[in-house]
Amino acid sequence: MIQAKGYAVHKANDKLAPWNFERREVGNHDVQIEILYCGVCHSDLAQINNEWFEGIFPMIPGHEIVGRVVKVGDHVKNFKVGDLAGVGTLVNSCGHCEHCEDGLEVYCKEGVVATYNNLDKYRDNLPTYGGYSNTIVTDEKFTLHVSESLNLAATAPLLCAGITTYSPLKHWKVGKGHKVAVLGLGGLGHMAVKFAVALGAEVTVLSTSPKKEADARKLGATNFVVTKNIAEVEKVKSSFDFIVDTVSAEHDFDFYLSLLKLNGVHICVGIPPKGLEVKNVGLSLQLGRRSVVGSAVGGIPETQEMLDFCAAHNITAEIEMIKMKDIHTAFERMEKGDVHYRFVIDMATL
Amino acid sequence: MIQAKGYAVHKANDKLAPWNFERREVGNHDVQIEILYCGVCHSDLAQINNEWFEGIFPMIPGHEIVGRVVKVGDHVKNFKVGDLAGVGTLVNSCGHCEHCEDGLEVYCKEGVVATYNNLDKYRDNLPTYGGYSNTIVTDEKFTLHVSESLNLAATAPLLCAGITTYSPLKHWKVGKGHKVAVLGLGGLGHMAVKFAVALGAEVTVLSTSPKKEADARKLGATNFVVTKNIAEVEKVKSSFDFIVDTVSAEHDFDFYLSLLKLNGVHICVGIPPKGLEVKNVGLSLQLGRRSVVGSAVGGIPETQEMLDFCAAHNITAEIEMIKMKDIHTAFERMEKGDVHYRFVIDMATL
Repeated sequence: MIQAKGYAVHKANDKLAPWNFERREVGNHDVQIEILYCGVCHSDLAQINNEWFEGIFPMIPGHEIVGRVVKVGDHVKNFKVGDLAGVGTLVNSCGHCEHCEDGLEVYCKEGVVATYNNLDKYRDNLPTYGGYSNTIVTDEKFTLHVSESLNLAATAPLLCAGITTYSPLKHWKVGKGHKVAVLGLGGLGHMAVKFAVALGAEVTVLSTSPKKEADARKLGATNFVVTKNIAEVEKVKSSFDFIVDTVSAEHDFDFYLSLLKLNGVHICVGIPPKGLEVKNVGLSLQLGRRSVVGSAVGGIPETQEMLDFCAAHNITAEIEMIKMKDIHTAFERMEKGDVHYRFVIDMATL
Repeated sequence: MIQAKGYAVHKANDKLAPWNFERREVGNHDVQIEILYCGVCHSDLAQINNEWFEGIFPMIPGHEIVGRVVKVGDHVKNFKVGDLAGVGTLVNSCGHCEHCEDGLEVYCKEGVVATYNNLDKYRDNLPTYGGYSNTIVTDEKFTLHVSESLNLAATAPLLCAGITTYSPLKHWKVGKGHKVAVLGLGGLGHMAVKFAVALGAEVTVLSTSPKKEADARKLGATNFVVTKNIAEVEKVKSSFDFIVDTVSAEHDFDFYLSLLKLNGVHICVGIPPKGLEVKNVGLSLQLGRRSVVGSAVGGIPETQEMLDFCAAHNITAEIEMIKMKDIHTAFERMEKGDVHYRFVIDMATL
């Protein structure tokens, strides 16, 4: 076994603290990565707090992982020692269902193995530990190539926030000629703006706060609408082809649907805790032939495509680097929405 | 003006009773139809009862109208006296917005004029009166050709129940190789089964009652699932490409979404009075990349296409003919779901 160290939480709602643990030996198809940076995702805190399901403790969060390959297994074909590499939200899947065969591992019919807080049922049934640690061992099939040309720390959030927004934009064929609204300018939202702009769409940021306008425009949005301003809202009624909804709090779906034109698509990538409600199905959905859709992260080939797209278009996340010991301050600020736009842990500070 | 007679209700929640009224003279682009049959739609009762909005009284319901042309205006090109003709849910629209120009009049940006319970704001701002009457005058643009080869009475419900289910099936390209579930075997549902079967899909009827199985199979469904039977439901989890949801009562969307496969589409054509709620956005929508969509009736060209499709495939509604005076008995039975599958009024009994 490989000796590793990380920051773990030992029971739900507790604080993260240093913890020594073991990673599996590098198998024939595995790569070992020295983790250099790890992004901080809302879901890290949600899982520490058992908000999704009863967690597996000790838990080491982190699924926006980048680093350098330090060892490869005998049968590894696509990575060599010294390569940059990334790991996202999943590290295993059944491998043989139709979705896995289509490279849509995140939709594996037997269920994926998440990068942390899961048992790897396809391997050893042992818990997975995430990227708030110094090293990780993953099957090369679930390991991504990361460009040397991009700021590496700012690449980490692409592994979750990036692919989660890129995937639906590609799936619903967002591009030139489309008007796209982005709802919620946080970790996901700021990536949605960058991708939609890079794909050729005209992007509007919808926000409750006028303070975000300068940032929205800096990210590439050409329009900004304060949703509390009735006159501004009136101008964009029935005007968008797509809304990328990154909000993980309650919000008024009927209102946002009214901003979509005929055949408009409301894409949910946030997870509102009380779900979604459309009060007036006739007006909000039927009379505009509108859709409300969901999308989850993305498959491995698409994640690689996204990383290559980012390299080609010089796209990374906007980040604030933190030290490992400051993770709880970062969580607190994240909960208040005080993050521009993703915290990334410098693993040299572990 | 043309003297006409019909069954009208004079205030909300009241009973229908005979009423003499006037139709406009036949204009240059108008046709006058002697109404022979009119279908009875749930929305007739809903509008009498002010369930959608404050109604315009006296109100003559009815928007599933078929009959014979008895007079045409000087500039009418596509109809002649003696032709069969139909009128559906709309009789006017702005005519110049992009949706009207695309033949999607039902989505007119300025708003449609419904066949009854609306003011014709594009003409004379007078109330429109529906098909529970002996004659109607409509612009030929909103008048449909009806085949002589089909049972005429059974054709009437195609003008609303037919197009409402045909349109989304065509829009979302339902066809060969697709597994389609139909939810709710009523006026809309039984048409959805017939159309989905005719389009080449494999159709399953989902029902709370095992009593409907024989009928479902007679209509062309190859499978029938009683949704209270857990073992049966388990077999169809994640199995459908589409659900056509015709239910206008509260129901559990998370449950039905779980029956859709990856990229599955839940099509709402019913209007649940309390709206729709997806409690678990992550599981029900995102982890299957599923969509919940709405669709409203259909445009005029598509309605004609649907009627031609029905003639080519020998499709009509399953109906029970009633006399005009028995309309309230029919309403009562309709409210209890005791209708197989659409009441049609024989206008000779007016």
